[in-house]
Amino acid sequence: MRSVSIIGCGLTKFGEHWEMSFRELIAEAGVKAIESANIEGKTIQAIYGGCMASGRLIGQEHIGALIADQFGLNPIPATRVEAACASGGVALRSGILAVLSGAYDIVAVGGVEKMTEVSTEHASFALGGAGDQETELFHGATFPSLYALMARRHMEEFGTTEEQMAACAVKNHKNACNNPNAQFQRAITIEDVMNSGYVASPLKLLDCSPITDGAATLILCETEKAKKLCENPVEIIASTQASDSLALTGRKSLTEMAATKIAAKEAFEKAKLQAKDIDFAEVHDCFTIAEILATEDIGFFKKGEGGKAVEKGKTSLDGEIPINPSGGLKAKGHPVGATGVAQAIETFLQLRGEAEKRQVKDAKIGLTHNVGGSGATAVVHIYKAIGGKR
Amino acid sequence: MRSVSIIGCGLTKFGEHWEMSFRELIAEAGVKAIESANIEGKTIQAIYGGCMASGRLIGQEHIGALIADQFGLNPIPATRVEAACASGGVALRSGILAVLSGAYDIVAVGGVEKMTEVSTEHASFALGGAGDQETELFHGATFPSLYALMARRHMEEFGTTEEQMAACAVKNHKNACNNPNAQFQRAITIEDVMNSGYVASPLKLLDCSPITDGAATLILCETEKAKKLCENPVEIIASTQASDSLALTGRKSLTEMAATKIAAKEAFEKAKLQAKDIDFAEVHDCFTIAEILATEDIGFFKKGEGGKAVEKGKTSLDGEIPINPSGGLKAKGHPVGATGVAQAIETFLQLRGEAEKRQVKDAKIGLTHNVGGSGATAVVHIYKAIGGKR
Repeated sequence: MRSVSIIGCGLTKFGEHWEMSFRELIAEAGVKAIESANIEGKTIQAIYGGCMASGRLIGQEHIGALIADQFGLNPIPATRVEAACASGGVALRSGILAVLSGAYDIVAVGGVEKMTEVSTEHASFALGGAGDQETELFHGATFPSLYALMARRHMEEFGTTEEQMAACAVKNHKNACNNPNAQFQRAITIEDVMNSGYVASPLKLLDCSPITDGAATLILCETEKAKKLCENPVEIIASTQASDSLALTGRKSLTEMAATKIAAKEAFEKAKLQAKDIDFAEVHDCFTIAEILATEDIGFFKKGEGGKAVEKGKTSLDGEIPINPSGGLKAKGHPVGATGVAQAIETFLQLRGEAEKRQVKDAKIGLTHNVGGSGATAVVHIYKAIGGKR
Repeated sequence: MRSVSIIGCGLTKFGEHWEMSFRELIAEAGVKAIESANIEGKTIQAIYGGCMASGRLIGQEHIGALIADQFGLNPIPATRVEAACASGGVALRSGILAVLSGAYDIVAVGGVEKMTEVSTEHASFALGGAGDQETELFHGATFPSLYALMARRHMEEFGTTEEQMAACAVKNHKNACNNPNAQFQRAITIEDVMNSGYVASPLKLLDCSPITDGAATLILCETEKAKKLCENPVEIIASTQASDSLALTGRKSLTEMAATKIAAKEAFEKAKLQAKDIDFAEVHDCFTIAEILATEDIGFFKKGEGGKAVEKGKTSLDGEIPINPSGGLKAKGHPVGATGVAQAIETFLQLRGEAEKRQVKDAKIGLTHNVGGSGATAVVHIYKAIGGKR
């Protein structure tokens, strides 16, 4: 039975890259990844790239071929995968399945988005295509408003407070202070969040992830080969994906994401693990309420307890289950197509003990959780540090 | 060693669907495919969908989740794949690799595009994203002009004539007269093509494929299981994909597509066949010159002989290698994301002897060839009729 491991990674700084184009971001992340894996580029046999909205944001589709071109890796097959904000996670899963199929032994998985060259209105409209254009965006429901509905309902059902949501932002900014690639490397306070303006009540500016440019690349390798190529590969021991209705109106509940629950349950079954076995997780906190929902739906906390958990510090870097040691989407930044790949990169670094000042102690097993839209796609991966022979 | 077969298919009529939305097209093709395969929808374990430019054309991304939603198949994983006009072919290859990986036994592969709701200028701009936005589209080079450069060079190097290109259009329109799902079910003459206005000299209006709405769905199944589920599955005996530079300026030659040559060569190696063993092919004729290039690059004719071959009737339905019995992109229509899947559907029908008045005699082995952009992605599949046990 084949298995897949990560042997290298490359990440650009996340932020506003006025001096770098879409393809320059791709090239930087790609070259770093190839160097990190200590392989020759020509050993890569295929590319999977996650990108959501390049058509609307920069007028460019056909991103797979563009990546192969930019990496100098023509004529290998290069495939773009799109699943809104889960594009990176789904690209990772596509790369894994391609290796498991036996078609390839070594593939590159990239993610990229260049979002800051257009107006915020234009970017919001492009991002709105992650939800249901006909029943949501067309009527003015941009993403903060969709997540605000979930937040309001969670407050109503479970007594979650705006301060608890703010605590997610404060924690993630604190973690990002130790991440040199993060967009916001500055601490904020609960008061800062509470005093920031409402974007869509109850969500305020500092509850929202930013608009970001960035690219991320992973090198995947069949595990037996990885052990020969690399001293400390990280094995991906579960990869799962689930879907839910595109529109919020099709959901049974506003306070849980069914796709996350199903993908997490299947991932734990495949890895023969439980939520309590996970040492840390990178979860999809496009808004603070999304992190609370994720920690509940994955199973780290009971439904309704996520807000209290973050308030009590249970998800802090030194807490019982550190969540988003990288700073998360909130503070590391959220270049949509790159996010899912960047989550895997953080996990790779943590499990190799290379996360420097934000290192989670004794990290052996990590989990990533990447969401598309308001929850219509969820992707979960579980990772384990393994020894290599190099 | 696992293998993958097709057990069912569904296609909408190709054309201008003023009365049907993007998602209604998907639903029609999906329901037809499930009925054709004679399975219950719930036995489908994952979806791969090809779609190029829904972001620009209808403001909607996250097409995988939308398809799962529209098929009523949540929560199964659903992934959109984009490779410009090769989106459908790459989605098919992704579905094949997913089954080969062992993750699934039965997957649906869909393709869709809704192109006629916007102006021709808007559609041209969206399609321009299939090439290099920075060095081509930004400077006004839309797709007819890129292919016109290739046509002009082919005329210069090999003496190919406008009449020979016109002969592709005449043949494909003739074939489409027998395809009830084709956009243009009417015959045209060489004079009609020669008298149509220049879009980008030497390409005239009737050298160009149209702008089309349409959706296509295939049901793939692991071959051993397929033989139990289906009397006459069609096995996919090779699936290959290659990349080339996104921009024409990066190519070594304007008169051949390196990605097609590589993908075809690898496909023949995998299938242990040669071009002469193929009984018919559906090739990517977005413009008439593209069909000529394809028939040469795949190896049906020597370089420079493709124009003469079509003029002599070698690629007609009763010729030595029938090309585009469906009518091709030229006359069947070209709903970009659906095209690669529709090519596989035509091949499936031909190999089952179900192509009615356009049936290729004694068809045992078929080939499809799907191109993204001006040749930066090429996907080749080879298919064989096999017996089932049902």
